[in-house]
Amino acid sequence: MVHTASPLLLLLSLALLAPGLSARQCLLTGNWTSDQGSSMNIGRVNYNGEFIGTYLSAVGGNITESPLFGFQNVIARQPTFGFTVERDFSESTSAFTGQCFLGTNGTEILTTMWLLRSIVDDIEDDWNATRVGYNIFTRPQ
Amino acid sequence: MVHTASPLLLLLSLALLAPGLSARQCLLTGNWTSDQGSSMNIGRVNYNGEFIGTYLSAVGGNITESPLFGFQNVIARQPTFGFTVERDFSESTSAFTGQCFLGTNGTEILTTMWLLRSIVDDIEDDWNATRVGYNIFTRPQ
Amino acid sequence: MVHTASPLLLLLSLALLAPGLSARQCLLTGNWTSDQGSSMNIGRVNYNGEFIGTYLSAVGGNITESPLFGFQNVIARQPTFGFTVERDFSESTSAFTGQCFLGTNGTEILTTMWLLRSIVDDIEDDWNATRVGYNIFTRPQ
Amino acid sequence: MVHTASPLLLLLSLALLAPGLSARQCLLTGNWTSDQGSSMNIGRVNYNGEFIGTYLSAVGGNITESPLFGFQNVIARQPTFGFTVERDFSESTSAFTGQCFLGTNGTEILTTMWLLRSIVDDIEDDWNATRVGYNIFTRPQ
Repeated sequence: MVHTASPLLLLLSLALLAPGLSARQCLLTGNWTSDQGSSMNIGRVNYNGEFIGTYLSAVGGNITESPLFGFQNVIARQPTFGFTVERDFSESTSAFTGQCFLGTNGTEILTTMWLLRSIVDDIEDDWNATRVGYNIFTRPQ
Repeated sequence: MVHTASPLLLLLSLALLAPGLSARQCLLTGNWTSDQGSSMNIGRVNYNGEFIGTYLSAVGGNITESPLFGFQNVIARQPTFGFTVERDFSESTSAFTGQCFLGTNGTEILTTMWLLRSIVDDIEDDWNATRVGYNIFTRPQ
Repeated sequence: MVHTASPLLLLLSLALLAPGLSARQCLLTGNWTSDQGSSMNIGRVNYNGEFIGTYLSAVGGNITESPLFGFQNVIARQPTFGFTVERDFSESTSAFTGQCFLGTNGTEILTTMWLLRSIVDDIEDDWNATRVGYNIFTRPQ
Repeated sequence: MVHTASPLLLLLSLALLAPGLSARQCLLTGNWTSDQGSSMNIGRVNYNGEFIGTYLSAVGGNITESPLFGFQNVIARQPTFGFTVERDFSESTSAFTGQCFLGTNGTEILTTMWLLRSIVDDIEDDWNATRVGYNIFTRPQ
């Protein structure tokens, strides 16, 4: 089951544990933008680390919106994470992994790498179907 | 929200559409094994293409079990998919993309590539934190 | 300069060091085929580990031949290696890394992963230009 | 054979073809630095596109120097390229692919992605041996 219990306890315990900046955990919740013109909005991270959200990319001048869902580690202060983006419009799928870092001044940064899988008609074309790349996300100004 | 509505309608429509093999869609639901000693069990795919499951890998002789969740395209006969594996024991995260192919004899095969993100203490070590690889999954005999 | 000195000393010392199979080093020199329909011929490995060769791929029924050159580690018994393939016909470039393994029965196997860089007109399309994949090469029968 | 003929003809023809900036080809020859603390020096590109050079990386405070060699496309104005770096000190090998872009103001930028192959003792650990990443290089100030 995808756990739907409230992340309230997690947020509460984080609040209790985090009187100062040094104990704060980097959380994916909220808005992010990349220097490559994509942006995303991620909802609450539940106590299992699961989250859902929306990925926006600028393709040929049009904004396309895709659902995403994934997981972040709930223990580490600067946690690793992963999520899948459903690109239904193109029948392709992308998956990201990365880590959420906290700067000395409290700024957050997501360093990610991704695979973008295109659909092919035949397994003989499978070798040609996977792209790799990276994105760095920060909080929008 | 991760949609929890019943995939019954999807299964029903697939059944109606699929009197023969040619119309069958490749579905991730069920058990899979790779030649590299990992295996996974994937639950029902809901009408949005979302699924959850369990990933088993053999590390140093011990079987470690990790939750996974992801998405498969629900339109294509041989759909692309992506999923994230939560490796809590190591604070790392992996993400897979791939495509589900149907052989002429009805056998199913998943071709995947993955990124494995390790946790690092400092963003200066970020460059060194991502592995890439591949797995081919088939149904266990 | 790419060193063009004779690899004779290397081969000689290998011969002296290798009275039995266990001391033999896995060398890239010779013919290789992959299960995906590509093949390559690699020339002598000089004492710096450098080699040149030819990469053959089957594209749309035609055989295209591309020069390759690279390097293998000259110390390790099962050395890592890397090489670049010049795909002039498409203005793209691919680069492989891998390791040369010796089976218990003396068979050799190359496990490789590669990046295939396509040319784009504008740096804004750079994110979309790199494919990733893998090949396993064995000696042709 | 790695062609050792003089690249003079290439340079001459480029000079003749390039009265203005718009016809200039992006060439890898010269010094480059990345924002991640690595730098490289690449020698002359011969008429086949081949080049050799030196890669410098900062590892644990020490500068380690590794030979590199590779190829750039000699036709395209903003050519793709690939090269292999021999990391003898660690018995690992890395391979880069990328493209050389010319900015509107004549600045040059190399966008690259790389695979870093570590050595493993046994083919069973092969799955774990390849890292992926990226570097952007510019001319040192």
